[in-house]
Amino acid sequence: MNNQDQFARAKEGPLRAEGDDAYARAGVDVSAGNAAVARYRDVTAGWRHPSQVGSIGGFSGLFALPGDERRLLVGSTDGVGTKLLIAAKTRRYDTVGADLVNHCINDILVVNATPLFFLDYLAVGKLDPDVAAQIVSGVQTACRAHDCALLGGETAEMPGLYARDHFDLAGSIVGIVDRDAVPDAARVMPGDAIIGLPSVGLHTNGYSLARELIPEAEWNAPFPAFGPQSSYLDALLAEHPSYYRAVRAIEAVTSVKAMAHITGGGLLDNVGRTLPATCKAVFEQSRWDVPPLVAELVRRGELRHDERYRTFNMGVGYTLVVPLAGAQKASQAWPGATVVGWIEQRRADEPAVVVHPARS
Amino acid sequence: MNNQDQFARAKEGPLRAEGDDAYARAGVDVSAGNAAVARYRDVTAGWRHPSQVGSIGGFSGLFALPGDERRLLVGSTDGVGTKLLIAAKTRRYDTVGADLVNHCINDILVVNATPLFFLDYLAVGKLDPDVAAQIVSGVQTACRAHDCALLGGETAEMPGLYARDHFDLAGSIVGIVDRDAVPDAARVMPGDAIIGLPSVGLHTNGYSLARELIPEAEWNAPFPAFGPQSSYLDALLAEHPSYYRAVRAIEAVTSVKAMAHITGGGLLDNVGRTLPATCKAVFEQSRWDVPPLVAELVRRGELRHDERYRTFNMGVGYTLVVPLAGAQKASQAWPGATVVGWIEQRRADEPAVVVHPARS
Repeated sequence: MNNQDQFARAKEGPLRAEGDDAYARAGVDVSAGNAAVARYRDVTAGWRHPSQVGSIGGFSGLFALPGDERRLLVGSTDGVGTKLLIAAKTRRYDTVGADLVNHCINDILVVNATPLFFLDYLAVGKLDPDVAAQIVSGVQTACRAHDCALLGGETAEMPGLYARDHFDLAGSIVGIVDRDAVPDAARVMPGDAIIGLPSVGLHTNGYSLARELIPEAEWNAPFPAFGPQSSYLDALLAEHPSYYRAVRAIEAVTSVKAMAHITGGGLLDNVGRTLPATCKAVFEQSRWDVPPLVAELVRRGELRHDERYRTFNMGVGYTLVVPLAGAQKASQAWPGATVVGWIEQRRADEPAVVVHPARS
Repeated sequence: MNNQDQFARAKEGPLRAEGDDAYARAGVDVSAGNAAVARYRDVTAGWRHPSQVGSIGGFSGLFALPGDERRLLVGSTDGVGTKLLIAAKTRRYDTVGADLVNHCINDILVVNATPLFFLDYLAVGKLDPDVAAQIVSGVQTACRAHDCALLGGETAEMPGLYARDHFDLAGSIVGIVDRDAVPDAARVMPGDAIIGLPSVGLHTNGYSLARELIPEAEWNAPFPAFGPQSSYLDALLAEHPSYYRAVRAIEAVTSVKAMAHITGGGLLDNVGRTLPATCKAVFEQSRWDVPPLVAELVRRGELRHDERYRTFNMGVGYTLVVPLAGAQKASQAWPGATVVGWIEQRRADEPAVVVHPARS
């Protein structure tokens, strides 16, 4: 989902920096988002269910299973964001379901949860049964790939709320994890390595800006950097991947102390909120490749360093903090997994995340 | 939610009758909805998770808890539907959260589930932090009233998808129930009584038609039938009530064999799908009151019998099938609970639900 468009209420990390040119250019009001997050905190501060368990970085919510408090139910809700507008305009309906499900799976994977079931919400201006079936089929396929039940869903036809060809797609996932299996970020220490899993493009973030920098008229133009015979559209609609199997493969060879799903806010906002205050994450961008679409957007938008690493994932879709001794095994456990940085001591006046850009 | 606008995929009951004038007048395409439901069935028929348990009437989805299969997790997703358009136009944001949460609570209550947690999805054209906080505050208050955690949520600002002042609100609930405590509809038999719990108005159904029959210009006009000093708007935005406490009170005094939440499709579509094929529900409308707003809409729209009982709840928000011997205790267990009908033998050529209208 487009976190640049969205403000997860559970998030405990730093609020987004105001006056961020990239967001403002895309018509998204960052200060309103921060104000909304602050207001939500006021609203929810008055009462918290005793079974709610403190989350890690706010990617999902945790709830102690009644009668068996060694286990936690894990829930997360997301939408696809304005990537939908590209799908709707180009009538490609088969990929957004996987975008939604995989995003949600990655969000609960941060606390090591195994997916149990998914519920989707599809709202349309005018119900076309074939289109709806294509969208839901994508949801079902991505669920099945994770042995996750598609337990239910709702389809709303609301002509007064949505334009005829528009639709919105959101969903909720529920998973489960043993309390002992939740990564313990308190174990993160200077010298640990950060393993990165490669992104395939924007995933579900930064589309408001992307649609401004690559106007609709260009979508069908060739974009061979993404692949032979490929168009910009192919790159724009590339599916948000699930990192479930990669993470399980890495966990099989080394202990994992903390993880982050790199969504809206990029490496700068998503990694720091999973770390102890005494640690910072230092990334060396020379260690990985920036996907061609992202590189093109950075070039067209003349994005500054901060804008790049807060608007886009810049090539890293998911991070895992592992002991240095496990780093090599981790990077060999899954294709594309690689050491992208490390943990260093953080002084009080330092940011939680630093990215050293590659020389260009 | 507006089931006239929505087509729950899990529903196993009869599809909506096509050529239904009331729906067509409100701009909702019933045949497209039925076609979509059929297509969803094709999509999901290919694979079903082994932990999924057959639902009752499709109000929610059931999933056997891993490691403790005597218990079931219960999930349901809903939206508020076009009632939102009235809230948005009149800038009343404090009630739609309760509409959403209470609708979801009633949906899982049909299988006797106790709510655990809720996740909400709020999508807006332009994020106004005060408005968003009012909406989420309503969600939180309704959750808290049921000791249900507001575990997370997502707020999406998508100016290209929603008009500036428009918003959509949907959410997912997760509850839990002992497998033994799920009502066993196989025990329903001729002679059983049907207890009805009173509705307060439209709840979250029939708003597309209501907005046509009561145009915006009239919303602020007095509607004293709803209450002193009341306007049509007050009646239109009356909160969808939760039947949680009423049902628990009735269960304390008698066994309950089947329940139904009367949403889109009314008594005609919602009650039948919870009954064995050999039983029909016979309602006597003289036994309860039709809410003033509903009566007004029936009058203005000159709705036929079928349209009335399929578009609106007509005054009954929730039904419980109880043994005749428990009927009196049940009706005394909660204010407004009353016997609204009974179960009779059903022949193969008969409908599952019959409503005998009051003489007018």
